[in-house]
Amino acid sequence: MISDSIIIEEQGLRDGLQNLPRILPLKMKLDFIYRLVDSGIRRIQVTSFVHPKRVPAMADAEELCAALPQDKDVEFSALVLNNKGLERAVDAGIRYVAASISASDTHSRKNANKSLRDAQKEFREVTALARQHHLVVRGGLQCVFGCRYEGAVEEDLIYNITKYQLDCGVQEMAFADSTGMGNPFQMRRILPRLQEICGDVPITLHLHNTENKGYANVVAALETGIKQFDTAYGGLGGCPFIQGATGNIATEDTVHLLHQMGYTTGIDIQKVASISRDMQEWLGSPLPGLMHSLLM
Amino acid sequence: MISDSIIIEEQGLRDGLQNLPRILPLKMKLDFIYRLVDSGIRRIQVTSFVHPKRVPAMADAEELCAALPQDKDVEFSALVLNNKGLERAVDAGIRYVAASISASDTHSRKNANKSLRDAQKEFREVTALARQHHLVVRGGLQCVFGCRYEGAVEEDLIYNITKYQLDCGVQEMAFADSTGMGNPFQMRRILPRLQEICGDVPITLHLHNTENKGYANVVAALETGIKQFDTAYGGLGGCPFIQGATGNIATEDTVHLLHQMGYTTGIDIQKVASISRDMQEWLGSPLPGLMHSLLM
Repeated sequence: MISDSIIIEEQGLRDGLQNLPRILPLKMKLDFIYRLVDSGIRRIQVTSFVHPKRVPAMADAEELCAALPQDKDVEFSALVLNNKGLERAVDAGIRYVAASISASDTHSRKNANKSLRDAQKEFREVTALARQHHLVVRGGLQCVFGCRYEGAVEEDLIYNITKYQLDCGVQEMAFADSTGMGNPFQMRRILPRLQEICGDVPITLHLHNTENKGYANVVAALETGIKQFDTAYGGLGGCPFIQGATGNIATEDTVHLLHQMGYTTGIDIQKVASISRDMQEWLGSPLPGLMHSLLM
Repeated sequence: MISDSIIIEEQGLRDGLQNLPRILPLKMKLDFIYRLVDSGIRRIQVTSFVHPKRVPAMADAEELCAALPQDKDVEFSALVLNNKGLERAVDAGIRYVAASISASDTHSRKNANKSLRDAQKEFREVTALARQHHLVVRGGLQCVFGCRYEGAVEEDLIYNITKYQLDCGVQEMAFADSTGMGNPFQMRRILPRLQEICGDVPITLHLHNTENKGYANVVAALETGIKQFDTAYGGLGGCPFIQGATGNIATEDTVHLLHQMGYTTGIDIQKVASISRDMQEWLGSPLPGLMHSLLM
């Protein structure tokens, strides 16, 4: 048995909410955040500073940041996409920001409305500005293991964007299987190379369970030495009204798997599961994770 | 990439139907069986010869066997629990039978209404009778990786029952994670020992995805050299009306994972997925697998 400690970053408040048909009220967001902290989670992505017209669910970003728990042991982060977002994050008192680029040019144009080239240019500006404000920046790539528009993504492109982001001065890196197309063989091939490139810069893996491979990918990634994962309570993150469009790997399910395999996380899955069940009740639709029902 | 061939045994018509609130009509069962054969599946467990009052969904076992496709390349098997069941299987013209014992005494008493000791005694009688009739017998253990009543199952007990069944003359062995409590570390520890004990006798792994670890367990099992898995179309096998009580690992999802990792199965997942969607429509409730929706 391995007794390694694994770091979980909760993404349910950001990646989990942006595609829902209803907006989770600020009061409930904060209740969930306090309870996530109480469950032992030490990294939480709480919001994104994007245009409220594009993502109405994140329009309360400033209000939410002002009401966050005053807990020095917890890193509250926010997603930023451009200089405007970064400035808002600074004003809101956020100290950890995540910025990312899609490894697929088509996805970048459709999702972020800019070419991969423009996205990279903007990424350097954002990172420079963040450093001026002494923020910790987590860089990142989306669609690392496949794109719904382009199919397979060229691996050299992934390595090159990673090097570029490191050169921009990011303090961490996140690699996302945004589409859930990744498989364990890819993890075993690509992750060691990414770890080699990143050196001392910590890597987080952001997995989705869209094709039921998310947890198998966790295990494959652990074998390559990955020690940080993004997850979302209840497996939020896809659209719960499109059957089969499951979201992020679920926090409870991932932590349960890790604990059974002898890893430690410091997280109480019963507490996380109760959040998922409350979310499910509010949503009126089942969340794709499995453990929150079993833990009742 | 590995180009190993993996054998899939479809269990949706047996393990997938016994807990449903409605009985799938014989005509639909046969339609699904013909379509499963057409999808490239070469092993199908089609029914069980149990008392029709205990499992009404299997009351049509004889009628179903009489109408099976005349396909020499496909092995149609049936589950038998006792001598009476075996005699019915012989009369129905079935050539492959599966018999199994729970590794948990409590589960055996609750599920099969007999102690582990009595189950073993009966197993030897059934196996002897099957051999007299020149049937191929697949032995098996349930609850190998954990029991909901007893928790962890003693590993030595598993090894001893396996040796006992081999001594009874089974030609194959199946090991079931009936509860979905198994994890990849257990697979890595227990499966090599079971393969050592079984020697040339082929092993099938029967996994459930109850706790979202089923596909991670597939990958861990592959690494130990396992080459045969039981699956069910759409992930049938739990009760679809109890949320989170997911069933077998889904045929389409498992085969998709295997193909992506470079294994061959000879199975067309589009064809399997269309069966799952028809089943879902008949059931009026979503099946737990994910690929049948994505493949639309």
